[in-house]
Amino acid sequence: MMTPDYGKTFALWREGAAAPWRDYTHHPFVEGLKDGSLPRAAFLHYLVQDYVFLVHFSRAWSMAVIKSETLEEMRISAGTVNALVNHEMSLHVKTCAAQGIDEAALFAAPEAVENLAYTRYVMDAGLQGDFLDLMAALAPCVLGYGEIGRRLASSKAEETPYAEWISAYADPEYQQVCTNVGRMIDKAVERRIGDLAHAPRADALQTRFTMATKLEVGFWQMGLDGA
Amino acid sequence: MMTPDYGKTFALWREGAAAPWRDYTHHPFVEGLKDGSLPRAAFLHYLVQDYVFLVHFSRAWSMAVIKSETLEEMRISAGTVNALVNHEMSLHVKTCAAQGIDEAALFAAPEAVENLAYTRYVMDAGLQGDFLDLMAALAPCVLGYGEIGRRLASSKAEETPYAEWISAYADPEYQQVCTNVGRMIDKAVERRIGDLAHAPRADALQTRFTMATKLEVGFWQMGLDGA
Amino acid sequence: MMTPDYGKTFALWREGAAAPWRDYTHHPFVEGLKDGSLPRAAFLHYLVQDYVFLVHFSRAWSMAVIKSETLEEMRISAGTVNALVNHEMSLHVKTCAAQGIDEAALFAAPEAVENLAYTRYVMDAGLQGDFLDLMAALAPCVLGYGEIGRRLASSKAEETPYAEWISAYADPEYQQVCTNVGRMIDKAVERRIGDLAHAPRADALQTRFTMATKLEVGFWQMGLDGA
Amino acid sequence: MMTPDYGKTFALWREGAAAPWRDYTHHPFVEGLKDGSLPRAAFLHYLVQDYVFLVHFSRAWSMAVIKSETLEEMRISAGTVNALVNHEMSLHVKTCAAQGIDEAALFAAPEAVENLAYTRYVMDAGLQGDFLDLMAALAPCVLGYGEIGRRLASSKAEETPYAEWISAYADPEYQQVCTNVGRMIDKAVERRIGDLAHAPRADALQTRFTMATKLEVGFWQMGLDGA
Repeated sequence: MMTPDYGKTFALWREGAAAPWRDYTHHPFVEGLKDGSLPRAAFLHYLVQDYVFLVHFSRAWSMAVIKSETLEEMRISAGTVNALVNHEMSLHVKTCAAQGIDEAALFAAPEAVENLAYTRYVMDAGLQGDFLDLMAALAPCVLGYGEIGRRLASSKAEETPYAEWISAYADPEYQQVCTNVGRMIDKAVERRIGDLAHAPRADALQTRFTMATKLEVGFWQMGLDGA
Repeated sequence: MMTPDYGKTFALWREGAAAPWRDYTHHPFVEGLKDGSLPRAAFLHYLVQDYVFLVHFSRAWSMAVIKSETLEEMRISAGTVNALVNHEMSLHVKTCAAQGIDEAALFAAPEAVENLAYTRYVMDAGLQGDFLDLMAALAPCVLGYGEIGRRLASSKAEETPYAEWISAYADPEYQQVCTNVGRMIDKAVERRIGDLAHAPRADALQTRFTMATKLEVGFWQMGLDGA
Repeated sequence: MMTPDYGKTFALWREGAAAPWRDYTHHPFVEGLKDGSLPRAAFLHYLVQDYVFLVHFSRAWSMAVIKSETLEEMRISAGTVNALVNHEMSLHVKTCAAQGIDEAALFAAPEAVENLAYTRYVMDAGLQGDFLDLMAALAPCVLGYGEIGRRLASSKAEETPYAEWISAYADPEYQQVCTNVGRMIDKAVERRIGDLAHAPRADALQTRFTMATKLEVGFWQMGLDGA
Repeated sequence: MMTPDYGKTFALWREGAAAPWRDYTHHPFVEGLKDGSLPRAAFLHYLVQDYVFLVHFSRAWSMAVIKSETLEEMRISAGTVNALVNHEMSLHVKTCAAQGIDEAALFAAPEAVENLAYTRYVMDAGLQGDFLDLMAALAPCVLGYGEIGRRLASSKAEETPYAEWISAYADPEYQQVCTNVGRMIDKAVERRIGDLAHAPRADALQTRFTMATKLEVGFWQMGLDGA
């Protein structure tokens, strides 16, 4: 299966983080979603933490609005904040409610250190650098989930109980979000850098992307360990 | 006509800034909207600056998402960012387009110092303080426009060419935004302070609100002077 | 031995985090410093990570300058930033140089997730809240090291090779820093809250302090595990 | 007289803002300092506002510590924060005290809108962009005062009562600060961009520098108008 086309910046960053990217997108947690072998307890632990993650990830996308320099950057970032806070968090709430966990409990769930490390790292990438530093730290989650969703949709076991999770990210609507974000990143690179591959900032941005990818690996692992 | 009920915190802040609040809500620019005597050039100058204002005001509301501590604070702030960026800015674009000013020109319009002073002050209120410091600086614009819209809707001259502007803020939908924001501020005060009137922070918050109110006065004046 | 007097706010927070505070200040790593049983490799691993910690801790104290509302807050915070960046980091460099680790290597050392989680959490506490939220997250490191230094100075084994580390924090100069920071926090509480024990914000601030204390426990553990 | 050598980035930015740079460095306020014709009341008004300016300018340099990516950037920025807060502000206090204005009054002085606009713009440049965006907004003040001090020291009237002000900025120590900051900016450009003159970001950075230069013009004018 081909790598999804989420833009040339993503392709470059993904290649620059080849080993951790594979660890992330093929983590045992992911393979467990695919073949259905993931323990329910691990999935639930992950879901609760992912809700807290979304709270802080929304805050980080709000930082992207603050750091935008074009209308398109503002629109996509603001739309993403709204989608995360007023839609995706609600989906999580429904899924969790079906398991007997209410929203106030979700919002107040004790945050695992792997979770906290990740979102605060992303937020600080925005505070320390510019829009691109923030995008390099935000990209692994947004685009990695798109890539995982696509792959799992075409390779999952018939009977996996996680088909709904998989289809949420394989969904054309989510895939379009990935395409749009990837294109916005490409334009942001053109506007601020030009040729990324040979730019002095290439290493610093790669480091951001790679670190966020490693923190994704830690997040899956936290899910497994929480079972 | 009665003062609109946008919550008890707003009532306290408004009273604490009585003179500048009157200067703001009864500024000659506002009276010119009401009786139709405002020169078209002043209105257009204001409109272009107000578009640039909205860009940075959206950024400040994004800071509110970052500073939120409850789900409700996040939802209202995120919804406001999205409404500003993906709706209200578009309305401005239409109005301006009808006058021959396109959106790229709007986004790139040279920012008047009175405009810049205001939005950057609000943003910095958020950076320096907490959610309430930011709200005290955001409230005069959001709620003041609601109050002005309500008053002008019931007192405007039949023939004023600014009836559309007035009705945008007198509109029940905008009035509901004001009620919701006012209520959110009241809850944010309860959560963080309790009895605001006797709290040590009362003066600091009042100073924020009063300063933002004075910056609103400067904004109208800039509109008049730009004609 | 009596608890050090670093102010009444610290006393309240410390009591509110009793169990994690004990885990932090009596961690096996600390006891190993005291009796000299800590493996040299663990200490070195800790030292290198602590250098990276100082980089980001200095950035967090810079956030305290940004969030200051009084001259005293500005002066103490600015002085702390300067002491950390232009003095304490140099001390670290000397200690590490004696072990064959140069400063460029230190600055570029891969950051352990426990390290990253801690400093970015502190930074974000400042971004999300006000000066006090940031102080609640900064206090466990500054004041806890003072408390540990004091205790170990009077109870350490004669032959511990970590006597120099202990005396750095037991030193009257460092103890004075703790007293000054503790007093500044008390004044900051008076200015913004009044009676902390019964304030609506008490829980939120306690949560910040407790979380930072737990992240200190994780930091020691990372040192031990790195051996 | 030759332009001072504060680095090649400054030379580029200065040339790119030629007209406003001349308006700033040869403002009637500056010429009044040189020939002694500046009314004392204007100077005092300026001094009080400049104290409030220093408060927020220190906060902006603290943002530079947060945004630093190298040890040298951290050290120079942290040293500058400390010099501003714990030394330069004290000098101001002495000068003002001699005129019967005490420090608490200074700290609480009502901030002129031209003052507020400037410092909050600089702060927001740091929040929106990266270290270089912030430096482009900080440079006009730091380096412009160096240039003005140098020029006035060699051209001032014997009898100007502002000789002390002039010598503070003509002083070799202050000139060294300018040289160091200019060199740090050059290195920061090399690290993040390479050849600035042909970089996609060149315009955005120039806009920052030019805007801050214009805000300096407004600051002098506020001094004159306040007499």
